Amino acid sequence: MKKKYAVGIDFGGTNIRLGLVQRTSKGIRVIDQVGCASRAAGRPQPFMRSIRQLMNILLRRHGLKPRQLAGIGVGMPGSVNTRQGLVHFLPNVKGWKNVPVQSKMQKIFHCPIVVDNDVNAMAQGEFFFGAARGCRNAVFLTLGTGLGGGLLINGKPFHGESFSAAEIGHLTYRAGGRTCACGQRGCIETEIGNAYLVKRVRRDIKSGKKTLLKKMIDESPEKKLEVKLIAMAAKRGDRYAIGFWKGVGQHLGHFLGGICNLLNPEKIVIGGGVGQVGHYLFGPLNRTLKASAFPAAARHVRVVKARFGADAGIVGAASMVFGKKSGGKS
Amino acid sequence: MKKKYAVGIDFGGTNIRLGLVQRTSKGIRVIDQVGCASRAAGRPQPFMRSIRQLMNILLRRHGLKPRQLAGIGVGMPGSVNTRQGLVHFLPNVKGWKNVPVQSKMQKIFHCPIVVDNDVNAMAQGEFFFGAARGCRNAVFLTLGTGLGGGLLINGKPFHGESFSAAEIGHLTYRAGGRTCACGQRGCIETEIGNAYLVKRVRRDIKSGKKTLLKKMIDESPEKKLEVKLIAMAAKRGDRYAIGFWKGVGQHLGHFLGGICNLLNPEKIVIGGGVGQVGHYLFGPLNRTLKASAFPAAARHVRVVKARFGADAGIVGAASMVFGKKSGGKS
Repeated sequence: MKKKYAVGIDFGGTNIRLGLVQRTSKGIRVIDQVGCASRAAGRPQPFMRSIRQLMNILLRRHGLKPRQLAGIGVGMPGSVNTRQGLVHFLPNVKGWKNVPVQSKMQKIFHCPIVVDNDVNAMAQGEFFFGAARGCRNAVFLTLGTGLGGGLLINGKPFHGESFSAAEIGHLTYRAGGRTCACGQRGCIETEIGNAYLVKRVRRDIKSGKKTLLKKMIDESPEKKLEVKLIAMAAKRGDRYAIGFWKGVGQHLGHFLGGICNLLNPEKIVIGGGVGQVGHYLFGPLNRTLKASAFPAAARHVRVVKARFGADAGIVGAASMVFGKKSGGKS
Repeated sequence: MKKKYAVGIDFGGTNIRLGLVQRTSKGIRVIDQVGCASRAAGRPQPFMRSIRQLMNILLRRHGLKPRQLAGIGVGMPGSVNTRQGLVHFLPNVKGWKNVPVQSKMQKIFHCPIVVDNDVNAMAQGEFFFGAARGCRNAVFLTLGTGLGGGLLINGKPFHGESFSAAEIGHLTYRAGGRTCACGQRGCIETEIGNAYLVKRVRRDIKSGKKTLLKKMIDESPEKKLEVKLIAMAAKRGDRYAIGFWKGVGQHLGHFLGGICNLLNPEKIVIGGGVGQVGHYLFGPLNRTLKASAFPAAARHVRVVKARFGADAGIVGAASMVFGKKSGGKS
C-alpha cells in the first residue's frame, strides 16, 4: 500500500514550518502543522535540532512514526543540489555552506528525504497537485518581493545543469533599465517585482497623481502602501490603480509572450500576492500575452492562478516526496 | 548491424539539398550531395517529385537502396509537428498547409522518416554530433537574418507543448524598443539580427563616423555592406568595427546571461555568419555573460562556435535520424 502521509518543511524568512500532509484521491491537504521562529533555529545545528523536536511533536499527535511516512520534503531558501540533497548556501541565513541536509536527516528519520530550493518546491506543488496538475510542460512564477520561478519540462521539474535553472526574474526585459538587486540592469524583476511596484506608486502619489490610495493612507496611517492596498484601490474603482495594474499586466504579458516563444508551455501558473489582483491584472496580461507570442504558442497556453496560497511552501515540499522522480537530477 | 548511412534534406531559401551522410566512429560526415532550386520545386507536389528524383540520383551513385538507410531526415523552413511528421505551414513558400510529409515519404521510400523545423534540425546536428556532443542541457542559437534557436533538455531536443518552442529570437530584450518582423517591440532579434546590424552600420557611415568600411565599399562598389564585411573590417584593425562588435557581444552576452538564469545550460552553441567574427565578438560576449548570469549558472556554461557551417542543414537533418528519440514528442 502506498504511504499516504508526508511531512513538508518550509524554511521561511520568519518561521520554519512543518506540515503533516495527506495524499487523498482528490489531491493533497495539510492536516496539521507546527513551527518555530527561523531566527533562533537558522544555523545548521539548531535547525536540525529544531526539526527533530518539531517532528516528534507533529508525528506523536497523530500516532505516526517516521517510517510510516512516504518521506520528508524540505524547501530551503537558497541554492540546493537536489540530486545530492546538499544545501550549497543560503543568501539570508548564516552558517550554511554545503550542508548535506538529505543524508543528515536520513540518519535521523530513516525515510526518504527530498531537498530543493523553496520556490522549486512550491512550483512542484502546483505541477503535481495544483493548478498545473496533469501538464507536461508548465512555467511557475511567483510574484513577491523577488520574482521566482519553476519549470516543468516533459513531465519533470527541470533544474538545469548545476541546479540553478528557473531564475525567471533575472531575464533581461528592459536593456539599460533600472539596476536590479542582482547587480544587472533591466531584469524583469525591476519591472514587476513588488518593491519596484510600490516605489512607483509612492512616487506617483508624491508627484500629485489623483488616486484613492492617498486618501486610504491618510485616513488610516497604520495602513502600509503595499501591493494588497493597490489591489484594493483597483477593486474600489480607483482609476489610477486600475490603470496601474493594466500597465503591470501588459508588461507581464509581453514578457511571458517571450517565455512562450522560448518554452511553449501548456500552462503558466502565477503565485504570490500579485496573483490576488484578479482581472485588473489578468485581463490585460492575457490580452498582451496572446498578442505577443507566436500564434502556435499563444493558442496552447493558459495563464492560471496558483492553487496553494499560504501553505504553498509546505504543500510544495511534501509534493516533492509524492511526485515522481523529483529526487533525481532532472 | 547499425545502418551507417542516412539522407539529410535541407529545404533552404535558394536550394533544396539532399546529402548522403555517413556515421563513423568519429562522428558524422557528408559524403555526397545533390540539389535543385527551391523556386521550381517549392510547392508540396513538385517538392515530393523532386525529392524522389534526387534521391534516385544520390543513392544510385553509391549503389544504395532506401531500405539500406538508417532513415531520411527533413528540415523544413517553418512550423512542423514533429511527432506526426506534419508540416503545418511555411511562411515563405506557398501551398503548404498541414502536409503529412512523413507519411508521404514513408510510402515512397519505406524507411524511417523524421521531419522537423530547419533550425531545430541544425540544433540537433550540434547536440548529437557537433559542438554540444555529450551534453545533457544546451542551447543552440543561429545568428542570421533572423535569430533562431534550439533547445536540448535532459538529453533530448525540446519542442514544447505544440512544437513551437525555442523561438529564442523573440524574447523581449528591450521593452519599448524597435519593432520586430514578428510585430512586437524589443525582441532580441531587433538588437542583434543581421538586418538590424547592417542598418545600424549604414546609418553610422551616413552620419560620418570614421571607419574603414566606407573606404572598403567606395573602392569596390561590388562589395555589399554585410556582416562579413563588418567582420573583415574589425580583423583589419578598424576601430569603429571593433567597437561595433564589442557592443554586439555585450548585448548578446547580457541576453544570454538571462537565458542561463532561466535554463542553466552546459553549453551555448552559436551558429550563423556572426559566429565567424571571432574574438572581437566572443571576448566581450563571454565577459558580459559571466558577469550577467548568477554565479552557479555562469560557472557551468561554455559558449562555443557551431561545428557545422555550410552543411549544417544537411548534417542536422541526418542527425535526427541517428539521434535517439528525436522522432517522438519531446
